[in-house]
Amino acid sequence: VVTVALDGHGADRGAEVIIAGARAAAGDGIAIRVFGSPDDLAGLDGTDGVELIPAQGAIGNDEEPVGAVRSREDASVVMAARDVAEGRADALASAGSTGATMTAALFAFRRQHGVRRPALALQLVVPGRDGPPTLLLDVGANTDARAGDLVQFAYLGAAFSQAVLDVERPRVALLSVGEEQKKGSQQVVDAHEALADGQLDFVGNVEGRDLLSGAADVIVTDGFTGNVALKTIEGTATAVAGAVRSAAR
Amino acid sequence: VVTVALDGHGADRGAEVIIAGARAAAGDGIAIRVFGSPDDLAGLDGTDGVELIPAQGAIGNDEEPVGAVRSREDASVVMAARDVAEGRADALASAGSTGATMTAALFAFRRQHGVRRPALALQLVVPGRDGPPTLLLDVGANTDARAGDLVQFAYLGAAFSQAVLDVERPRVALLSVGEEQKKGSQQVVDAHEALADGQLDFVGNVEGRDLLSGAADVIVTDGFTGNVALKTIEGTATAVAGAVRSAAR
Repeated sequence: VVTVALDGHGADRGAEVIIAGARAAAGDGIAIRVFGSPDDLAGLDGTDGVELIPAQGAIGNDEEPVGAVRSREDASVVMAARDVAEGRADALASAGSTGATMTAALFAFRRQHGVRRPALALQLVVPGRDGPPTLLLDVGANTDARAGDLVQFAYLGAAFSQAVLDVERPRVALLSVGEEQKKGSQQVVDAHEALADGQLDFVGNVEGRDLLSGAADVIVTDGFTGNVALKTIEGTATAVAGAVRSAAR
Repeated sequence: VVTVALDGHGADRGAEVIIAGARAAAGDGIAIRVFGSPDDLAGLDGTDGVELIPAQGAIGNDEEPVGAVRSREDASVVMAARDVAEGRADALASAGSTGATMTAALFAFRRQHGVRRPALALQLVVPGRDGPPTLLLDVGANTDARAGDLVQFAYLGAAFSQAVLDVERPRVALLSVGEEQKKGSQQVVDAHEALADGQLDFVGNVEGRDLLSGAADVIVTDGFTGNVALKTIEGTATAVAGAVRSAAR
């Protein structure tokens, strides 16, 4: 049985989302250890496969993550991360502050030897398109990334695509402003050279329009560009859907 | 009468697009001087307000712009740019290679005193939304921009928004990964500080989802991020429209 440590705080739409998620996962045979307020999460009392462990509140989006994680040992996400580090759970899930979650995980799990920076990875699913999601990373952990970081993100993303998304030999690409090897910022050009000489199935550069086209299984960029791209996808999808709705009326 | 020097080569869909555009502009009372192949552009013969000046071919997307512009004085975009520089036309338009057009314009027009780098500006129009387009710059001229370049792009963009798009006092924003002043890459944080102390109506940082929301009249970024954002908008709009079409069937 896989056991997930779940942060019981921080969902934009409140505790009922956490409760529904925990129930759905438990129904799929996943053991859930949820950390949060017994009052807020009372709806989970007696649910098979769900254990509730009281925690002292959430770390909010407005708090500085490193300071908050260090000083608040009993915050829900910190307790959940410790649960994994100490072997009582296999994975951590949180709907709360991304910065706090990443920091809690980083402090509790540590990085794999040789990995300089963690990255945030996003699974891009296009409605109506078959096949596994495209993994985009980094979408915001590192606003200033070196070429060597981009290369590491490529290997980390390929490992995730293989192990979690069942892609046998992931096609890995760099996000840039043109397909030619020399196109892009200096970091991207340098990372391209390193990846072309590396062990991955590196398919070269892709452009913004390829994020949803299935041109690659893993698309690598720095956290600044990746975060802008992620939010541009959200904003464009909202604007286009709104225009279609208006036109339909 | 405004006179436009028009590159008669380089349109993805061929000379008929150039011909249709020249005719439409002439019909609006704009004088057109078109540079290209008399054979390809024969459809313009005798059109009122359109003058055809023979040129020796186009500079293609696959040519290195600086070398090509320097060595090919009779290429259509080079002749058209010279036409403006020598006072026979007021503006240059080209549907061809962006790099060649920018280079030809830069060499012929020169930069305004004190301006370090030119930028490419894109007018973002959301179907169904009223008001002037949002200007996004740079969308690809400079893949590595300094904080000082971003500040200059803000002033250049505001001037364009005012003079061309009739926005009386353009709201200027920086594209970043969060609204807080300290969010973003080092260049963005530094540019934010300079713009907050400057003369523009600076509204702070916006995120990718604001590109199509009308949150600002001018949105400033480096050419790498701007180009990725532009192509992400294109790719997302295509994917969403495709999903809507599939669902409708």
